[in-house]
Amino acid sequence: MSEFEKSALNKVVRGPNRANYDKNKIYEIVDSHFLCHMGYIYEGTAISIPTGYGREGDVIYLHGSTKNRALNTVLQQEKVSLTVTHMDGIVLARSVFHHSFNYRSVVVFGKPRLLTDWDERMHALKVITDHIIKGRWQEARIPNEKEMKATMVLAVEITDASAKIRAEGANDEPGDMELDVWAGVLPLQTTASAPLRNEDCKPDLSVPDSVNQFDTF
Amino acid sequence: MSEFEKSALNKVVRGPNRANYDKNKIYEIVDSHFLCHMGYIYEGTAISIPTGYGREGDVIYLHGSTKNRALNTVLQQEKVSLTVTHMDGIVLARSVFHHSFNYRSVVVFGKPRLLTDWDERMHALKVITDHIIKGRWQEARIPNEKEMKATMVLAVEITDASAKIRAEGANDEPGDMELDVWAGVLPLQTTASAPLRNEDCKPDLSVPDSVNQFDTF
Repeated sequence: MSEFEKSALNKVVRGPNRANYDKNKIYEIVDSHFLCHMGYIYEGTAISIPTGYGREGDVIYLHGSTKNRALNTVLQQEKVSLTVTHMDGIVLARSVFHHSFNYRSVVVFGKPRLLTDWDERMHALKVITDHIIKGRWQEARIPNEKEMKATMVLAVEITDASAKIRAEGANDEPGDMELDVWAGVLPLQTTASAPLRNEDCKPDLSVPDSVNQFDTF
Repeated sequence: MSEFEKSALNKVVRGPNRANYDKNKIYEIVDSHFLCHMGYIYEGTAISIPTGYGREGDVIYLHGSTKNRALNTVLQQEKVSLTVTHMDGIVLARSVFHHSFNYRSVVVFGKPRLLTDWDERMHALKVITDHIIKGRWQEARIPNEKEMKATMVLAVEITDASAKIRAEGANDEPGDMELDVWAGVLPLQTTASAPLRNEDCKPDLSVPDSVNQFDTF
């Protein structure tokens, strides 16, 4: 399957011309970020919580403390949704009405499953760690038994997904083209600046490959 | 009121030492971003949708097409939640377990109200526009009757809010301090790059003040 089927859940209602159901495109967007907003329902209200993630195949891994309210809640749900958003720019049109954002946004839906097998959990934590900062798993000390006990790991098998992408200039009304108003895009991006060494870090240790090779987005 | 009361809804359960209920701090975080994730419930699943916003006093304004599914859904809800997240850095510890993010995150809750008064709606759109890019409202053509008719504007009166902030280096276990693993923070920020002029933009128009004075975060 190279494309997700449209369902009531993932079908893009507004701006369907910006919708994309292509799996490669969706995973490209998912993979070039590491922070998603997970939706969960608490006392009747939908709450979005930012959390890190890792992807492998059609699975997204999440983790947190065993006491994490949001993770424990979504485990009781049939489906969980995860939203990944790249804010790529502010679109300035001649009219206020046609102002917009350039963005790449994905919503994935899947059934959350609590991992219980030690190896599977350890593997998922490696996927998450290396998704956030590639190569870090092999540089750092991996979790011990006590830490694994305090950690909850979830696998979300992706069942539905869709992307919305806008990547163009301002689209104004024909009647506005002669207005003396500048139109264009102010591009935005996430960048890394120089790494800050911990005060208690051994002075002879140099900045690791994972940091030097970090890809901004 | 300078502090939001803790309720079941906004009380930070995990990492309460990172929690903040101070109104000034919360609004500072809200004001230094323009994109939030709005939670809404669709077919029993909580979905997070990215959307722009503006704040004035204890009100957050949202807008969209009159056909916007998410906005129409939250109007039926007692409360809506909006999450604002600044990803400030990746925290690299000696142990995988103590890896973390530096971030400033706010969740606000409020009762959504559909605005119907022309002046109030126009004012809200000005607040949103100038919140996203200060000064743009007076540079561009303001909405006409047809555009106002196609636009839905919501006011969310903030009733509960909380912030979670982490802004420090890696905190490792005493037993890990002698490991030969680099520890520190890779700072991340959102930056703007050179504005891209629309191809059809009049060549004699210079980049406007709103763009030149845009504050990154």
